[in-house]
Amino acid sequence: MKDKKERSKPWGGRFQEPTHELVEAFTASISYDRRLFRYDIEGSIAHAKMLARQGIVSRGEARTIETGLKDILREIEGGVFEFSPEDEDIHMAIEKALIGRTGEAGAKLHTGRSRNDQVALDVRLYLRAEIMAILDGVASLKAAFLELAEEEAETILPGYTHLQKAQPVLLAHYLLAYREMFDRDESRLRDCHRRVNVMPLGAAALAGTSLPIDRAYVARLLRFPEISHNSMDTVSDRDFIAEFLFDASLIMMHLSRFCEDLILWSTGEFHFVEISDAFTTGSSIMPQKKNPDVAELIRGKTGRIYGNLVALLTLLKGLPMTYNRDLQEDKEPLFDTVDTVKACLNILGEMVRHLNFNREKMVQEAQGGFSTATDLAEYLVMKGVPFREAHGIVGRLVRFCVDSQKDLASLSMEEFGRFCPLIGEDVYDRLSIRSSVQSRTSYGGTAGMQVREQIRRIEAQGRSRPGRRKAP
Amino acid sequence: MKDKKERSKPWGGRFQEPTHELVEAFTASISYDRRLFRYDIEGSIAHAKMLARQGIVSRGEARTIETGLKDILREIEGGVFEFSPEDEDIHMAIEKALIGRTGEAGAKLHTGRSRNDQVALDVRLYLRAEIMAILDGVASLKAAFLELAEEEAETILPGYTHLQKAQPVLLAHYLLAYREMFDRDESRLRDCHRRVNVMPLGAAALAGTSLPIDRAYVARLLRFPEISHNSMDTVSDRDFIAEFLFDASLIMMHLSRFCEDLILWSTGEFHFVEISDAFTTGSSIMPQKKNPDVAELIRGKTGRIYGNLVALLTLLKGLPMTYNRDLQEDKEPLFDTVDTVKACLNILGEMVRHLNFNREKMVQEAQGGFSTATDLAEYLVMKGVPFREAHGIVGRLVRFCVDSQKDLASLSMEEFGRFCPLIGEDVYDRLSIRSSVQSRTSYGGTAGMQVREQIRRIEAQGRSRPGRRKAP
Amino acid sequence: MKDKKERSKPWGGRFQEPTHELVEAFTASISYDRRLFRYDIEGSIAHAKMLARQGIVSRGEARTIETGLKDILREIEGGVFEFSPEDEDIHMAIEKALIGRTGEAGAKLHTGRSRNDQVALDVRLYLRAEIMAILDGVASLKAAFLELAEEEAETILPGYTHLQKAQPVLLAHYLLAYREMFDRDESRLRDCHRRVNVMPLGAAALAGTSLPIDRAYVARLLRFPEISHNSMDTVSDRDFIAEFLFDASLIMMHLSRFCEDLILWSTGEFHFVEISDAFTTGSSIMPQKKNPDVAELIRGKTGRIYGNLVALLTLLKGLPMTYNRDLQEDKEPLFDTVDTVKACLNILGEMVRHLNFNREKMVQEAQGGFSTATDLAEYLVMKGVPFREAHGIVGRLVRFCVDSQKDLASLSMEEFGRFCPLIGEDVYDRLSIRSSVQSRTSYGGTAGMQVREQIRRIEAQGRSRPGRRKAP
Amino acid sequence: MKDKKERSKPWGGRFQEPTHELVEAFTASISYDRRLFRYDIEGSIAHAKMLARQGIVSRGEARTIETGLKDILREIEGGVFEFSPEDEDIHMAIEKALIGRTGEAGAKLHTGRSRNDQVALDVRLYLRAEIMAILDGVASLKAAFLELAEEEAETILPGYTHLQKAQPVLLAHYLLAYREMFDRDESRLRDCHRRVNVMPLGAAALAGTSLPIDRAYVARLLRFPEISHNSMDTVSDRDFIAEFLFDASLIMMHLSRFCEDLILWSTGEFHFVEISDAFTTGSSIMPQKKNPDVAELIRGKTGRIYGNLVALLTLLKGLPMTYNRDLQEDKEPLFDTVDTVKACLNILGEMVRHLNFNREKMVQEAQGGFSTATDLAEYLVMKGVPFREAHGIVGRLVRFCVDSQKDLASLSMEEFGRFCPLIGEDVYDRLSIRSSVQSRTSYGGTAGMQVREQIRRIEAQGRSRPGRRKAP
Repeated sequence: MKDKKERSKPWGGRFQEPTHELVEAFTASISYDRRLFRYDIEGSIAHAKMLARQGIVSRGEARTIETGLKDILREIEGGVFEFSPEDEDIHMAIEKALIGRTGEAGAKLHTGRSRNDQVALDVRLYLRAEIMAILDGVASLKAAFLELAEEEAETILPGYTHLQKAQPVLLAHYLLAYREMFDRDESRLRDCHRRVNVMPLGAAALAGTSLPIDRAYVARLLRFPEISHNSMDTVSDRDFIAEFLFDASLIMMHLSRFCEDLILWSTGEFHFVEISDAFTTGSSIMPQKKNPDVAELIRGKTGRIYGNLVALLTLLKGLPMTYNRDLQEDKEPLFDTVDTVKACLNILGEMVRHLNFNREKMVQEAQGGFSTATDLAEYLVMKGVPFREAHGIVGRLVRFCVDSQKDLASLSMEEFGRFCPLIGEDVYDRLSIRSSVQSRTSYGGTAGMQVREQIRRIEAQGRSRPGRRKAP
Repeated sequence: MKDKKERSKPWGGRFQEPTHELVEAFTASISYDRRLFRYDIEGSIAHAKMLARQGIVSRGEARTIETGLKDILREIEGGVFEFSPEDEDIHMAIEKALIGRTGEAGAKLHTGRSRNDQVALDVRLYLRAEIMAILDGVASLKAAFLELAEEEAETILPGYTHLQKAQPVLLAHYLLAYREMFDRDESRLRDCHRRVNVMPLGAAALAGTSLPIDRAYVARLLRFPEISHNSMDTVSDRDFIAEFLFDASLIMMHLSRFCEDLILWSTGEFHFVEISDAFTTGSSIMPQKKNPDVAELIRGKTGRIYGNLVALLTLLKGLPMTYNRDLQEDKEPLFDTVDTVKACLNILGEMVRHLNFNREKMVQEAQGGFSTATDLAEYLVMKGVPFREAHGIVGRLVRFCVDSQKDLASLSMEEFGRFCPLIGEDVYDRLSIRSSVQSRTSYGGTAGMQVREQIRRIEAQGRSRPGRRKAP
Repeated sequence: MKDKKERSKPWGGRFQEPTHELVEAFTASISYDRRLFRYDIEGSIAHAKMLARQGIVSRGEARTIETGLKDILREIEGGVFEFSPEDEDIHMAIEKALIGRTGEAGAKLHTGRSRNDQVALDVRLYLRAEIMAILDGVASLKAAFLELAEEEAETILPGYTHLQKAQPVLLAHYLLAYREMFDRDESRLRDCHRRVNVMPLGAAALAGTSLPIDRAYVARLLRFPEISHNSMDTVSDRDFIAEFLFDASLIMMHLSRFCEDLILWSTGEFHFVEISDAFTTGSSIMPQKKNPDVAELIRGKTGRIYGNLVALLTLLKGLPMTYNRDLQEDKEPLFDTVDTVKACLNILGEMVRHLNFNREKMVQEAQGGFSTATDLAEYLVMKGVPFREAHGIVGRLVRFCVDSQKDLASLSMEEFGRFCPLIGEDVYDRLSIRSSVQSRTSYGGTAGMQVREQIRRIEAQGRSRPGRRKAP
Repeated sequence: MKDKKERSKPWGGRFQEPTHELVEAFTASISYDRRLFRYDIEGSIAHAKMLARQGIVSRGEARTIETGLKDILREIEGGVFEFSPEDEDIHMAIEKALIGRTGEAGAKLHTGRSRNDQVALDVRLYLRAEIMAILDGVASLKAAFLELAEEEAETILPGYTHLQKAQPVLLAHYLLAYREMFDRDESRLRDCHRRVNVMPLGAAALAGTSLPIDRAYVARLLRFPEISHNSMDTVSDRDFIAEFLFDASLIMMHLSRFCEDLILWSTGEFHFVEISDAFTTGSSIMPQKKNPDVAELIRGKTGRIYGNLVALLTLLKGLPMTYNRDLQEDKEPLFDTVDTVKACLNILGEMVRHLNFNREKMVQEAQGGFSTATDLAEYLVMKGVPFREAHGIVGRLVRFCVDSQKDLASLSMEEFGRFCPLIGEDVYDRLSIRSSVQSRTSYGGTAGMQVREQIRRIEAQGRSRPGRRKAP
């Protein structure tokens, strides 16, 4: 019985003993790589067409192969295809089914290629599609942030450094800061996509093939703008996956930073925002709880993606040329990362639409913490005081206010005069948080006119890239 | 309909809107934490017994709960329990089923505890059992290495540093080096087990409870030698998981080093070992290939475990006290690590028993590379030459041999004399690899007598710890 | 000139070409491993004594070596020893200086040992000393937390889960939670120390030596309770460094969590604590800023230590036996980790003594957020309501309060009655935060009696381990 | 005395107590960020020119500032500038020196900017220069590989998968595979450079400034093609550093893979290559050793760079907006990575020029291991045998050869006939390794004509990008 099973191994000819069943279970990847089925079949059809065009198989055989593969595709999609436990991987599972159905024609499919280049092809097809899906997710999240920025164009937020109040800013300005991060994420993903979008098939095991294949034709059929140049590199290269995992790590890092703020702002102490009931959950013991679980989970999942990146980098370190079986371990971190990033972008996009900002609390907090002290220093600069000196004067004024429990705007002219005779009545105009915000008109600053300019710039970009989501 | 579902949330009282379905999917852990079911039920039975003993529930209610939970256990084990997609996690799934069967009695189970301490209990029960299973795996692998060392007690291997031949050693000596690593792995796992084996239940949400519970009684029922001392720490602590992931990382690192050597030794160039057909696999394109896939995969999976460690460390960094939902992300890396380490220990133990060493090739290689040069230097030291000078003399002799394509043992007395007059006829005894090996009699050295002493020491340890596998 | 330099290489005999100067700079470790000088000399003196005792060198030679080494020690300590750029490492630098001073005696020192076991010895001597120093730092930080807990034994703090108010707790309870973490850190470091404290010298290059050395005597001289058992393992083992880096990672993780809270609590919004001026810094532009930089830097440095752990784990992965030069890269992450952890423990211990808690704000916040809702549910449980039902009743009461902008304690009996007829006048006693805290009397809970019991337990431990800081 | 020191803190106005000296030491970055001095001064000069152009300072003041800064630059370059221990960082050190020399003019320099945007500017100036330097290093390494490929254009190497002989390839083909990796490294670095090359100054602390600065003018002076769009993002963004650390990680991973092969090939067993004496080192105990230390160290340093990446990703995770002091910890990993990558590229480029390949041993090994079995299968395919069937036939032939200790080329026609009647006399032509190599003519394959085509393609690229090293 074992013998029979063994004879079914497509590479069993050279072997005397059957594979140990522990080994079968340990080396099989079918439980997770089956999700590549669509790409495996797409690639095989293109390969078969090329083989026919080059006279390596007959046109009839190619048609038989294509029909057989399309049947298998429908069955897998329909959930009726039977994966057998001893199939090693999705490539073998499909090829075996094809041979079972088409006989000799199917047995010719694996001509002029190897699993080494085949799996590279499948993963590249998969990843280039998923990068597009993630770019859609980023675009949609960016849209949510833009909408929110437009809604909160007048809302004042205390701006923090070191989580200490620094200067008042517009909430819209804060939200657009995240758009900048997402723009960079997009830009990195597009660069990565370019390096993913290279056709590997035809590298065969590692050295190319003696059969008269036409790699350029396969590339055209599969819409690859480029073909890999070196067969040894082609089968051992996983740079494109590592790069994607890194890009995903930065996306998650950005989301984790926003979620951190969201969690802070949802505390009773900050109370800047209320997340809707639909996006929070309760406690099994404390009846009053309403927890920002989604934000916490996104923050926590950042670790997961970093871990996936480390996993791949570790396995690649010090690998000899060319293909080594270690490389099979690239897929689970990749799939998990794709799923996680898509889910996080998606749910955060929805959640952002269910935030209810508490504008009064924000303004109230922005007024505290002497957050217009820098305005006062800049006021002195415009009166001719060197900045370093101005900084010192205002520092001492703040110290005086802390000790006497006042704030800057409530000081009398006499009190100001004790610290600097150049301060005039016009100072009071500079000490309100709204005028502070409005005064920061430097390019990229938080003044309303600047924030509106950024919104206009972004909208203009959107208009000029109508097909943006189609191709990177 | 949504309303109905929502009413079924055990914590839904305070909420007006139902949970968004994206949120349900995103926050649910039931797909992976269901594997804790056995421990969840074991813990709940102990909890119910304690509640009855303390008069918080009646004895009858406790019996009803216990019977209900045991029914559920059997159903889950039998594969007939129906998990519903809106169950958040295994704890809620089981509690809901229990209430469905037992009504009011079941509704009293979650008294004096919270999911926060319940999940800590479940994971601790799970992990202390799995550490024991991994210790069994390590013990079994150690046994396989010991057997092999006994079989290869006379086999000579070229010892390497920098992968350059350094000095001949016994293969048994090499194999016992791995036993030392596994001993340390065991030692670390036992230390970790001690810190896992602490009873957390009764910490409740974070502050303990006002109900008159008896934590010590629960600890006795569940065979915990210790109880946690601080409820806030108890629900936010994941140190024990991180420590386990680290211990697992070192185990994998050790396995990866052995696998690296195995892969090298299986090359045609080294050809020190043949892995049996049953533990190798072939190529889809190259009919002659027999690849050490298992060793490569183990080496590659090291990255995966490192990644899991990084994932957990990252998520813990900077978390505020106490429980935060980020912590839910501890489970998948933990489960994956347990599964991976067990599988790797298991399959490597088997594979080691299917190795066929090529003793001639090893001896032949050990003879090359001037690997007895250090013996010659030590010979000179015993003749009174300071070591640094001896080192220089032998270095020049080696240079002379390289240039004249000789080896040390083939030099004439006259040739030796040109480099150092103290070299006598007795030198030839020192230049054979077997006498080189036998001369290294310092404690822990590679001489046969030392290696046999190590084997005796190990066997004696085994005898004196008959119940070793029972408790750490 | 090159020739001259080359002849000075202690291993130069076999080489024809001099080392490329790029290679000298690239491979030298003298710039950072010089900090091992004290341990290198201590180890060499013990080695020389042993060589004399075994008759390998004369007693006179051993005395000459010892005197020479002690001179060198004094010169290095005094800053007058001249390190030359072409010294490869601290071992070579010292040996060369010794030979320069003592001639033939010095040239005999490196007998029966190799740099491979020598560096293992030096690092183990270094690390076992530094672990003791870090244990002192942990003990001192624990003392600071205990003092603070005693001072704040009555202070009430809102306890959080998900950063949402959960239940009121004692600040002392919170602080003692950190003591639990530090206790585990200590426990792990002591376990690690045991595995560090093993004598490696005598493993020589990898195989032991043919010279009649006495490793046990060296171990006694250097106060090692154990000797390594396998020479190959001895020179390739860096487990003990990896374990230390992991233990350090968890220490930093704990510090980062406390710092996160400190940063939050220092915000204007929380305002639970004021860090003294001496432990904060200002802004170059914003005159009012007082930033918790120390806490932020500690949090940030957590990444650095994680990075060091990853660096070492990565380099060890897949290394063939035994010593490979990659291992030289173990030192910088080790040294950096020791320095960073000591500095962080030290400065945090000081800073904790400069915190000024704002007790009123804490109490005030603890009163909000319905943080006694669980008490109400437990009250209902004691009246016979099943917990799940009680949870639902209280959840609806909270909802009602939110909608009508009341808090639980301000509801009338009539209002309570609408939700549950079992609620009596005695409910109001349960709704104060102080009675809530006092009621959590389960072991490890937050009630004052429990917290005091923990303080007593800790103090008793301290008394029973007077020499605790001396030896682990 | 403390007071005096304190008064010198540029931000001391608001503070009553002096900074604790532990805090000064702990928070200071001057020991490592001083290497930014050149960029700090360059940025400050541009800033001063802009301030003058906008009328914020006078033209005279700007000239005074510029002269003062240039003096300081010369002093630092000349090693005569005195850094004082209480200088916090390079920015403060330079500003303080400037004020000391120029008084009021210098005190005006820090107008309209903050350390937050200043440090972002300095790091961006530094990194864009260092990326160019690294691109030079990559280019030079690529040139070394190309030269070597040209020299070894006819050399046959056994190609490996799973470190088992797979198919013979040209050594030039192998070397060009590394060029492909370095091409991708270059491509990623150029993409990163684009994102580094953005002007941050003018973001000020986080919100922009009220002073009438001209950011575009500063950008022109400093040759930045782009200006950052959002001030909050600008001061909290470290994406560009993380991206660089990742790009560096992949470079190191590539180098580690090549070094792994080099170490393998330098073993006595492979003996494919001899590294020149100048690039190897010896042993302190074993006189015969010649170790590939440089390759080992490069492989080991890969861990260091991965660790740096992890350090930065960890610290960024979950940081609230905007600047937090944690970000100061970005610099050491960055500097260490730049130094390490440059050194590794540099020394590897030199070492590659000192390799001596052992062509006979390579050919000899290529002939073993049935490495033309795939050729035989492809031969059968061209005779009409379906590939799967051909694979099985050849597998059985190999099995037969192993059992009868023959190789494929030594089988008789009669023996071939037993396995497949279609095999004719022409088969022997296909079984030589040279014809095997020459037959792999598919694009990117190992046939000489393909390899020469790749060399031509590369040379053509070089010609068409003469200024390549000038600008990315």
